[in-house]
Amino acid sequence: MKPDEGRRRVVIEEVQPQVDYGVAPARRFLGDSVAVSAAIFCDGHDHIAARLLWKHQSDPGWQSTPMTALVNDLWSASFPVDRIGPWSFTIQAWVDHFDTWCADLKKRLAAQPDPASSDPAKRNLPPQDIPLALTIGAALFDQIASRAKGADAKQLKSIAASLRALAGKNSTLYEYPLTPEDEALAVRYPDPSFASTVGELRLWVDRERARFSSWYELFPRSAAPTAKEDRPARHGTFADVELLLPEIAAMGFDILYLPPIHPIGRAFRKGPNNSTTPGPDAEGSPWAIGDSRIGDLLVDPCEGGHKSIHPSLGTPADFDRLLAATRANGMELALDIAFQCSPDHPWVTEHPDWFLHRPDGTIQYAENPPKKYQDIYPLNFESPDWRALWDELRSVFQFWIDRGVRVFRVDNPHTKPLAFWQWCLAELHRDAPDAIFLAEAFTRPHLMYGLAKRGFTQSYTYFTWRTEKSELQSYFEEITKPPVSDFFTPNLWPNTPDILHASLQAGSRAAFQQRLILATTLAASYGIYGPAFELCENVPIKPGSEEYLHSEKYEIRRWNRRDPNSLAPLITLLNQIRRTNPALQSDLSLHFHPVDNPHLIAYSKSTLKPPPPLTLAETLTPVPPPAARPAAASGTEPANTILVVVNLDPHYEQSGWIDLDLKQLGIRHDETFDVEDLLTGIHYQWHDRSNYVALNTTTQPAHIFRLTCTNA
Amino acid sequence: MKPDEGRRRVVIEEVQPQVDYGVAPARRFLGDSVAVSAAIFCDGHDHIAARLLWKHQSDPGWQSTPMTALVNDLWSASFPVDRIGPWSFTIQAWVDHFDTWCADLKKRLAAQPDPASSDPAKRNLPPQDIPLALTIGAALFDQIASRAKGADAKQLKSIAASLRALAGKNSTLYEYPLTPEDEALAVRYPDPSFASTVGELRLWVDRERARFSSWYELFPRSAAPTAKEDRPARHGTFADVELLLPEIAAMGFDILYLPPIHPIGRAFRKGPNNSTTPGPDAEGSPWAIGDSRIGDLLVDPCEGGHKSIHPSLGTPADFDRLLAATRANGMELALDIAFQCSPDHPWVTEHPDWFLHRPDGTIQYAENPPKKYQDIYPLNFESPDWRALWDELRSVFQFWIDRGVRVFRVDNPHTKPLAFWQWCLAELHRDAPDAIFLAEAFTRPHLMYGLAKRGFTQSYTYFTWRTEKSELQSYFEEITKPPVSDFFTPNLWPNTPDILHASLQAGSRAAFQQRLILATTLAASYGIYGPAFELCENVPIKPGSEEYLHSEKYEIRRWNRRDPNSLAPLITLLNQIRRTNPALQSDLSLHFHPVDNPHLIAYSKSTLKPPPPLTLAETLTPVPPPAARPAAASGTEPANTILVVVNLDPHYEQSGWIDLDLKQLGIRHDETFDVEDLLTGIHYQWHDRSNYVALNTTTQPAHIFRLTCTNA
Repeated sequence: MKPDEGRRRVVIEEVQPQVDYGVAPARRFLGDSVAVSAAIFCDGHDHIAARLLWKHQSDPGWQSTPMTALVNDLWSASFPVDRIGPWSFTIQAWVDHFDTWCADLKKRLAAQPDPASSDPAKRNLPPQDIPLALTIGAALFDQIASRAKGADAKQLKSIAASLRALAGKNSTLYEYPLTPEDEALAVRYPDPSFASTVGELRLWVDRERARFSSWYELFPRSAAPTAKEDRPARHGTFADVELLLPEIAAMGFDILYLPPIHPIGRAFRKGPNNSTTPGPDAEGSPWAIGDSRIGDLLVDPCEGGHKSIHPSLGTPADFDRLLAATRANGMELALDIAFQCSPDHPWVTEHPDWFLHRPDGTIQYAENPPKKYQDIYPLNFESPDWRALWDELRSVFQFWIDRGVRVFRVDNPHTKPLAFWQWCLAELHRDAPDAIFLAEAFTRPHLMYGLAKRGFTQSYTYFTWRTEKSELQSYFEEITKPPVSDFFTPNLWPNTPDILHASLQAGSRAAFQQRLILATTLAASYGIYGPAFELCENVPIKPGSEEYLHSEKYEIRRWNRRDPNSLAPLITLLNQIRRTNPALQSDLSLHFHPVDNPHLIAYSKSTLKPPPPLTLAETLTPVPPPAARPAAASGTEPANTILVVVNLDPHYEQSGWIDLDLKQLGIRHDETFDVEDLLTGIHYQWHDRSNYVALNTTTQPAHIFRLTCTNA
Repeated sequence: MKPDEGRRRVVIEEVQPQVDYGVAPARRFLGDSVAVSAAIFCDGHDHIAARLLWKHQSDPGWQSTPMTALVNDLWSASFPVDRIGPWSFTIQAWVDHFDTWCADLKKRLAAQPDPASSDPAKRNLPPQDIPLALTIGAALFDQIASRAKGADAKQLKSIAASLRALAGKNSTLYEYPLTPEDEALAVRYPDPSFASTVGELRLWVDRERARFSSWYELFPRSAAPTAKEDRPARHGTFADVELLLPEIAAMGFDILYLPPIHPIGRAFRKGPNNSTTPGPDAEGSPWAIGDSRIGDLLVDPCEGGHKSIHPSLGTPADFDRLLAATRANGMELALDIAFQCSPDHPWVTEHPDWFLHRPDGTIQYAENPPKKYQDIYPLNFESPDWRALWDELRSVFQFWIDRGVRVFRVDNPHTKPLAFWQWCLAELHRDAPDAIFLAEAFTRPHLMYGLAKRGFTQSYTYFTWRTEKSELQSYFEEITKPPVSDFFTPNLWPNTPDILHASLQAGSRAAFQQRLILATTLAASYGIYGPAFELCENVPIKPGSEEYLHSEKYEIRRWNRRDPNSLAPLITLLNQIRRTNPALQSDLSLHFHPVDNPHLIAYSKSTLKPPPPLTLAETLTPVPPPAARPAAASGTEPANTILVVVNLDPHYEQSGWIDLDLKQLGIRHDETFDVEDLLTGIHYQWHDRSNYVALNTTTQPAHIFRLTCTNA
């Protein structure tokens, strides 16, 4: 034990936020106020004091603020995060002998006998040794002065002297001798000699786009302008994508995500509809990455792997131009990084050790017996040469980061070791803390959460398969609250090139509308695979399958972006609503409200501050009833509160009564308030908690209400 | 990173049991089967294997057992604890290439084309490369053989050879080539090269008495035989207590607990009813410990502090005789250790540094302004001489341990630093792992739980103040389930010398009955302060106070142990029921059942094993409905199931319908079962979940049913 270890009497426990006791950093976003809480207590009845300390990794020293005691030994304080990247925080707490003395002195003074009182009970109270208490206080002020300097030290010493003088006066009835200024001065020089502390806890702060983002996925191969006579369609290029940027930006998206743009292998190349016997013109799957022979054919020779560009899409210069044009349109470009190889990938010959070899000398292709994926070689992470493999994989990201890309959708990260991601993402984030990594892991919960804990910024979710009210509600309550929300940020996709969910196949346009409204309002980040989504593409390759018929994964598609039935106008409106309502730009306030119809789901999001937990002072004095407590908006902006009601039935109108949780909405009991439907512009006057809604499947599939308190 | 760190693909998380991520050991009891669970998973689709390892600290090596996969990446296994003291456990998990190969081979075989099939679809299936898979298997068996020796190695090599031979045969339709014995042999030689592991987790195992105990507290000063004429009563002695032992043992108690037995200080000694102006005959409070002058008066001189005996109680030899007599009566003696001093304690002069000195040179007595406790000096744990203080305090326990005492009730541990207890109890437990420490901390939850985490065996609880059904239920659900039950063992006291609860003051004999039945059946450990309890002593010193009038803390009391209204017969019966029904000897199975009357509370305890969580195999095959799953008793004993229903209203008869959780009771839906009231011996036939009870306040305050399934 250290020399003074036994004299540290304060215990600090249950520090929040933390993920698995500090194994992973908790995640927050730029501009957040990070609320830190802990259970802090010591033996006996002495008062304690605590302070929160924090720093960005690049700061030379700590900043600090006092913590406040709430009920039941819980303390809290907050700090603002004004830079992205790694932060640390910790807590110090100590026995506060000065505060204990002040409180005891007040109790003594209140209990001292008053010789002038007309009440004999007050006259005959036992003595309270006030002079001795004052002398003890004087000694305390001397100690405090010894930790101060200059004018403060002088002032503290003078308070000590005046306490001693008062003690010497031998008064009959004493008054409290300190001014609030005296107390405040003393508090500035606490005695940390025997302070307890906790190990530094880590926090990772991401930029705003990590919290609030709207993704649009398209296959550049299908981006060529549609010309009816022009069959088969020409292979789209980066230049074609450039021409589409204004339209995509106008819909309100901020991230344009492209499937892998690398050369596609030739061996075992797949044909349309995943055929294993394709014709010579088959384009293959962009996820069968690598063609080492392609470099020789190009003006700019390339290695033909993950750092190369498919020649049919364009040149590296074309890519740079697309990247710049995307930015010019107010968007960012996201690349798809899929760590797997076609048999033609240069790594196959350059690094045979990175693959598993079979006894017949062949390389093990991807298999899920009895299924075979002979166009794909998985990487062998148990390779003795794993260090070189890790370095090379990291360098793939670094190559595109150096080129200017900052957003990555990572394909199947759950088939690579978690230890690799922990190392790789930390390495990349060190120099590019603004990089965003979206984990495309559709797998079991522990593995999905495990990836998020190891550094993925956003994660795909089970949303695609959650269609019933109860399963939507329980899933979103899990992922938008701590502990999960401390490390996991959802990104909702109603469709992907791999997933055409049964509900979309069966529900037609109304189902697409509902799923879109859910995705855009349940989570601050969402994405669609277009134009398949806005054109309500819903034909599967066969009944019971989630694969599209004529999937773009295996062939060039022609899309009629001018289709009058396109959902583009609704998408545009929803993205506008998301941009103008800060409530929809974060997930943490999501709250479900009961509706008496299982086909109607209702939930709210708000920038209202959550009602603060009671402080110790409030529990000792009468507390105003919760409904009357003012719920202030964070910062100086007025609060923004959105209430969404969606009809989950794609076939029939549904109606019912919502039972609003008024406290959550910052509305007083019995109050009348305005609700404006942002989808239609119509205003309604609602009153108190119980309100009626009726939603048609096609003309009015949902309400997105903005709430305004009439008397606010 | 270590050389092979990157090749360890398995993640182990959420290991249970553990307390605050290993900060404190989890607690179990001798004979327990410790169920360990964890989330264990890896990237990709490979199978994994895991094993649980454990050892008692005194064991030279680890024992191990395979873990079983349950649903959702959770794995579990158990180990028995057959010795008390410190245990460790850990988990190893690795990618199981052998198991993956077996499973894949079975899938390949099931999908191979069958040229003899009449079904053209079966005839035309794509080839499955079985010979290559067999060759890979042969290589695996060679590797496994290299880890084996002797006959096993030979056998494994012969399996490899036969797989190779089979691969060479070029058969048209293969069958699974391994016998269960082949597989079992391979499993015995796993490849732990890239196994992941977790840090060792600690477990502390206590003896049975720590889990199941019945305490009786009495003041030896009042133990002299009652003689009507003999006023004032003679001071009781250890010899008097000896005479009472058969009677206390006959009531069924197993721990006799005495308030402090040390010399009592003279300075500021308290008189009857806590008077500060006592007469010369005042006995003082046993908690005002220490009289350094007393040693000179005795035949065996003593230091007069915590290692000395009050001369009015007897000599050290008398104490030894009482200790032996207690054991002879099948009980243990518990001492009260209160670390505080009277002004006459020898430490005051020998170690002035252990106390806080005031500017006037006096020592700071205990204060809670405006209240003063001038007969008590608290110890100053912030003393620079804290190490010597800690050592001396530890030596107090050690002194009595060396004398043969193994059970201690520790007074106000929450007014001493938690760091001290952590050190002190660990030191004492090292040589006396059978020592039991009961924490008398009536304080806030974090502090009470903090003491338990730092080594206290049992803890006083809020039971004394929980009288309503809802508050009893929520409190006991908290303390009898993890995480709390992993470190906290409750000991329920319906009364103590400090606490005569309002419900006892108001409720008279019926209230004493109810509180006794609750205490004896809600928790496996309980205690009463007698004879005040069995004689229903219920007069407070003043209205609104929890202090007794004429408290034994300040004077000698005379008790009529032959009072015909004594609750001794009920106490005897309840202790018999507890001894003969193992269900009541542990807290972990406590389960509340709804009753439609707020004055009736119903709960069960059972030795039925909890229904096992589903295993992975069960989720892949149809699972029988829960009610039909046989709930086996632990070990070979038949299950013991107790259902308790208590009328919480001390004034009126109450009746209502219980809605039994049949699954919890191991009873099938629609079953008829026998319930025997162990308080009356009357049997009832009950049917299904809904059953009626009516409880009179005095004649039948409760049912304690033993359940027997008629068809079991």
